[in-house]
Amino acid sequence: MAISRAPAAEILCSGDELTLGRVVNSNAAWLSRRLSDLGFEVVRHTTLPDVMDPYIEEMRAASRRARVVILSGGLGPTVDDLTREAAARAFGKKLVRSGEALAEIRAFFAKRGRPMAPNNERQADFPKGSKVLRNPVGTAPGFALRAGRALVAALPGVPPELRAMFDREVAPMLEKQFPGRPAVATKELETIGLAESEVDRRLSGIATPDGNPRLSLMLRDGLVTARLVARGRTSAEARRVLAPAVKKARRILGAAAFGEDGQDISDVVVAMLQKRRLKLSVAESCTGGLIGHLLTKIPGVSAVLLEDIVTYANEAKVNRLGVTAAMIRREGAVSAAVAAAMAEGSQRKSGADVAVSVTGIAGPGGGTALKPVGLVYCAVRFRNETTVKELRLPGDRVMIQSRAARLALDQVRSALAGVP
Amino acid sequence: MAISRAPAAEILCSGDELTLGRVVNSNAAWLSRRLSDLGFEVVRHTTLPDVMDPYIEEMRAASRRARVVILSGGLGPTVDDLTREAAARAFGKKLVRSGEALAEIRAFFAKRGRPMAPNNERQADFPKGSKVLRNPVGTAPGFALRAGRALVAALPGVPPELRAMFDREVAPMLEKQFPGRPAVATKELETIGLAESEVDRRLSGIATPDGNPRLSLMLRDGLVTARLVARGRTSAEARRVLAPAVKKARRILGAAAFGEDGQDISDVVVAMLQKRRLKLSVAESCTGGLIGHLLTKIPGVSAVLLEDIVTYANEAKVNRLGVTAAMIRREGAVSAAVAAAMAEGSQRKSGADVAVSVTGIAGPGGGTALKPVGLVYCAVRFRNETTVKELRLPGDRVMIQSRAARLALDQVRSALAGVP
Repeated sequence: MAISRAPAAEILCSGDELTLGRVVNSNAAWLSRRLSDLGFEVVRHTTLPDVMDPYIEEMRAASRRARVVILSGGLGPTVDDLTREAAARAFGKKLVRSGEALAEIRAFFAKRGRPMAPNNERQADFPKGSKVLRNPVGTAPGFALRAGRALVAALPGVPPELRAMFDREVAPMLEKQFPGRPAVATKELETIGLAESEVDRRLSGIATPDGNPRLSLMLRDGLVTARLVARGRTSAEARRVLAPAVKKARRILGAAAFGEDGQDISDVVVAMLQKRRLKLSVAESCTGGLIGHLLTKIPGVSAVLLEDIVTYANEAKVNRLGVTAAMIRREGAVSAAVAAAMAEGSQRKSGADVAVSVTGIAGPGGGTALKPVGLVYCAVRFRNETTVKELRLPGDRVMIQSRAARLALDQVRSALAGVP
Repeated sequence: MAISRAPAAEILCSGDELTLGRVVNSNAAWLSRRLSDLGFEVVRHTTLPDVMDPYIEEMRAASRRARVVILSGGLGPTVDDLTREAAARAFGKKLVRSGEALAEIRAFFAKRGRPMAPNNERQADFPKGSKVLRNPVGTAPGFALRAGRALVAALPGVPPELRAMFDREVAPMLEKQFPGRPAVATKELETIGLAESEVDRRLSGIATPDGNPRLSLMLRDGLVTARLVARGRTSAEARRVLAPAVKKARRILGAAAFGEDGQDISDVVVAMLQKRRLKLSVAESCTGGLIGHLLTKIPGVSAVLLEDIVTYANEAKVNRLGVTAAMIRREGAVSAAVAAAMAEGSQRKSGADVAVSVTGIAGPGGGTALKPVGLVYCAVRFRNETTVKELRLPGDRVMIQSRAARLALDQVRSALAGVP
């Protein structure tokens, strides 16, 4: 028996705040993840301003193209909240007031001791035949209706309201109404140190953008994520398709695959330090605190991180890390020798088990022919050994800082890799 | 003479990472703001997966509906980078290799001493008759072509590359090719310390979402930006409409308006330090390097920043900043006394003119009834005076760190405000 195709889903968002660029559309991404997890294939996001005619047309077009259409926004009490009327007109239904929904809206205001404006009553009007979707966290109820072969569900645009309503009302409806959809299993491998084209080349033998599993590559903070998505008639089958491909991909990528499913290199390094009960100290120059910032985003990092000394000025390198002024004069602040001395000084002064340092030229100024923008030295001092790496990084200042910080953390990972 | 209608623009993004929900589409919002500023009306965002046929169809449909179509994504070197071929097929052009673009891609790799994969050559193929758009920060060139009445411009999906290419290549082209569009003048006022609803309430008298100028509010890193957009038949007229409203808004917002047009509080603080020739040192605990990171994103900060000491462990507060162990025992590491001692120690040890410190509980763990998650102390030591502020910040760990770092920098701004 062949695996059925994933039913197509579309997301249609409305709101001038989106087309004016005042608000980034996080709802489309959130809904896409949820729908993918439920075994649907999101084939389109559309965002329109609060204008009636194109909205009606697009609702009709989406309901012809996809089996599921999620509408986001336009359920508020004001005149530019068009979704109720647009859906009624798109699908040839009358707008009727729901007594039950109206009572809930009244109760919402009464409970908070706030007066209810007359136009809030409009929020209880729905296309005839709709199922009203309850809003557990706000005033705007949603609704769902059948339009030809499609299920259309209208949710409020406020993200916490949309999320709560989708999870409580829409997801169970989708699971019930689409029993035959394929199961999906997904694994993301996070890589470091390889260009996108190189990851693509290496993995092209085990998966393709159209195959099962399907391969897609994504760039995040300069690092490449390889995502494998397998389909099957059941979850177990999807996982069986996925597992050998993931295993092969890991073998092919080797040490470049540092983690999975959204992990940052900082997560992996902190977990290694915790497991081995090792303390880390950091000494930064051109990355200016970014390594510390990445590490301290992680709850509980205080158990492994002692300090991060950002020695931006040369005096600070001397005073705080014990780099000698003579060495800085002789080798330059951006040099393998100074990187090593920074890591060694950091370890000595903090008493850490492992110390990592970065010094480099993030630009745009400060580069020379011999030491161009993008030249970075990272050093790791672990127990009595120091390793130094020279990097030549492309991109602008922010990109160079981002890559340098993550490659320095990767060097810590390498140093710890052999330690049980 | 009435102000002419704004020409319609559409944004068409492609990428599985978008329809799978792995990445939030920030490009659509950024492009929408820029296009609005240039006097275009964004009438639709569409996002599609990396699938050829619907992409071709949508390119054609968009070019019939709008005068300007911006494509984002699909210009990389891999087989799922479809934009070049899709545009050629959508508009009936042959793909031809640009020798000039190829030379630039080769130079990009050569300059960085990296080998160029054969599939990177594909990035120099464009629909015949296109103008090649240079990429100042990456390998993927873009292209622009005429399709009927529409100008279609294809940009890389990586945000810094897209932004640089739009500003340097596309914006000048749009200004030249659409001389009749209404002129627009824009000013963004960056605020700190006020909730969105409070900024809205204060400014509602001087501009509305529908008026001229038009007011819109945006949240960025927990801070509120008030954006005023005025239209006129000429740039001079638009500026004449805008100026008095901006003046009034500044007066109403007072010290809460710290900057304008995308400035971060770190930009303002660095500019103040540069102007006054003052040196800064930083001592962080719960913000973990974020203050240093915000400051060192700014080119040329080395002239004013000496060091940033992230004392995550209590021993580091003692060893690096001279806070006494007795004080930490007595007051707790998160206390007004320790914040003050950190700033004073930072100033003393670094020799800076001004020092700023932060200590707090970013969560999710570590809170108590007396010292809950979100409690943060910031101190500023300037010459011989120390000021300490207690903050109680809402949100999760990342949001607390982000707000604490920015409010600490705002405290530096206050301390320096009286100094010429």
